[in-house]
Amino acid sequence: MHVENVTLAKNCEVLDLGNSAFRTYLICNCLLVLKMLGLIALTVRHRMKHKVFISEEDTKMGVGGTVGSHPDVDRVRRAFANDLETIPAFMFVSLYYLFTSTPKWIVHLLYYLFVLARIGHSIVYAIKVVKQPARAVCFLISYFILIYLTLHTLFYAIFAKHGLK
Amino acid sequence: MHVENVTLAKNCEVLDLGNSAFRTYLICNCLLVLKMLGLIALTVRHRMKHKVFISEEDTKMGVGGTVGSHPDVDRVRRAFANDLETIPAFMFVSLYYLFTSTPKWIVHLLYYLFVLARIGHSIVYAIKVVKQPARAVCFLISYFILIYLTLHTLFYAIFAKHGLK
Amino acid sequence: MHVENVTLAKNCEVLDLGNSAFRTYLICNCLLVLKMLGLIALTVRHRMKHKVFISEEDTKMGVGGTVGSHPDVDRVRRAFANDLETIPAFMFVSLYYLFTSTPKWIVHLLYYLFVLARIGHSIVYAIKVVKQPARAVCFLISYFILIYLTLHTLFYAIFAKHGLK
Repeated sequence: MHVENVTLAKNCEVLDLGNSAFRTYLICNCLLVLKMLGLIALTVRHRMKHKVFISEEDTKMGVGGTVGSHPDVDRVRRAFANDLETIPAFMFVSLYYLFTSTPKWIVHLLYYLFVLARIGHSIVYAIKVVKQPARAVCFLISYFILIYLTLHTLFYAIFAKHGLK
Repeated sequence: MHVENVTLAKNCEVLDLGNSAFRTYLICNCLLVLKMLGLIALTVRHRMKHKVFISEEDTKMGVGGTVGSHPDVDRVRRAFANDLETIPAFMFVSLYYLFTSTPKWIVHLLYYLFVLARIGHSIVYAIKVVKQPARAVCFLISYFILIYLTLHTLFYAIFAKHGLK
Repeated sequence: MHVENVTLAKNCEVLDLGNSAFRTYLICNCLLVLKMLGLIALTVRHRMKHKVFISEEDTKMGVGGTVGSHPDVDRVRRAFANDLETIPAFMFVSLYYLFTSTPKWIVHLLYYLFVLARIGHSIVYAIKVVKQPARAVCFLISYFILIYLTLHTLFYAIFAKHGLK
């Protein structure tokens, strides 16, 4: 029975707030969600400012305006679309990666680096346009972290020796 | 060893069907997925009805039609796009929030309210257009629930005393 | 105390690499993420090849080109948009489904079938266009697997007898 307890402990420790890697996972992904919610708010602000709305009924709220878009709105939308391509994938894969027996400093390093790269991407894309390759560099950092985490988890799930049941 | 068992129990109880907060999580998010799958089916129905398709090869299936869109299709697509901005984020954050030691009635209240707000949003946007601010109210309810859950989880992960290992 | 341990074991076994259903979950979803990352790379390749970029600053990187799109780019974008509608939903629901007491061969069968359907969808949509209903069949297979998993989990969470706490 003692042996069984040890197995349980190992397994249950992954999704435990006492596990610093899990805390890093939670903190990083909450920051990413807040960043995305920030871009949504920024879109609304640009739509209000330029009085360009997405649907006909929005133009009848008393502030006037027309159905359409504006370069500022489009720019935030593109930044957000790029987020949607990479961030949900990261939120899943960074959860899976916790189950591979990886040293915790690698988790801390890669997850915070991903968050910084995505925040940088949003800033140079949607808030203060910086000339390329600023955005490309931010994107590629997040892209390659994502590929590494996914491949590592995939090979770990396929090839690692697990206590088969 | 007894103490260790209690710790394990606490941790493993979160993702347990015996935990009513986890059941609420599963029920709410399955409902949200079904709602999104419903909007996908509605898009296909509008495309078939108005014979406007997304790709060239779709016009050669025997029913005729052209590549293009229609206001009905666009409306459902916009409702769906708004879902994609908030629902996946909620599905993650509502999972994280289960790990914070929150009274279960708050989980039940906020999660079901979020589901109702999103169903309301889809109805007034894509099914029967209701004049604003109906859609804005639905959106803002879901938006602020999402912000609250994210901030609460973030601060909990950063500041709560955890059994550090 | 022995009884309590058995309950814990059952619960903790779901998210355990010793559980072949969880390994299938990880493998399938890592493959899906890699497929999506592949479509992103394909978009970049088409943009470079046809020198059509998404933002003004991209045209000033030295390779020239204009802001705009190209049928090849649009095609990959549409394939990717369809992925975004179904794959994140699957990644969640296939996780929830692990908590229902389902025979493992069903998990293996449905999850790998979903992956094959989505890979097929991407190939016939974005890489080598095959006439319909090839794409529709791939889409419908993934769509109905998703509906089945969601409904099963929903009813299981609502009606199954759980050790209530």
